[in-house]
Amino acid sequence: MKKVSIHITLKEGVLDPEGKAIEGSLATLGYEGVKEVRVGKLIEMYMDDAVDVKAEVEAMCQKLLANPVIENYTYDVEEGVVS
Amino acid sequence: MKKVSIHITLKEGVLDPEGKAIEGSLATLGYEGVKEVRVGKLIEMYMDDAVDVKAEVEAMCQKLLANPVIENYTYDVEEGVVS
Repeated sequence: MKKVSIHITLKEGVLDPEGKAIEGSLATLGYEGVKEVRVGKLIEMYMDDAVDVKAEVEAMCQKLLANPVIENYTYDVEEGVVS
Repeated sequence: MKKVSIHITLKEGVLDPEGKAIEGSLATLGYEGVKEVRVGKLIEMYMDDAVDVKAEVEAMCQKLLANPVIENYTYDVEEGVVS
């Protein structure tokens, strides 16, 4: 099996109210020096070794997992994982 | 500035309905060979160089960012980033 970790983040310039809320809460809790908090998604999955990971993950992100208009995505693949 | 990326994932054994829904949708779209989809959060932030990142991030995760009962967290730090 391959373990794929997909990181989905908002593009620069897209407002992130959740990140802003976290930034405000951190400041309230006394954590100063924290800036530009942005919240994204992390999707982990296992894929069969036979699958062409690059092509499949790209297609899955474009069609379902991310919104390519406002989000960027990157992914890491870990080979030879025993699920 | 330091760029900190925090990965928050559900602990093993904790049900993940969002992951299950994605898994079902991927199967419907014809992506076979995908298993155990789990959805987590990715929180990115910039911190001042003066801050003790390890201590602060640990405390922030325990108190606000993650729910330590059901979630695990890891983080990467990138030093010397121009924000």
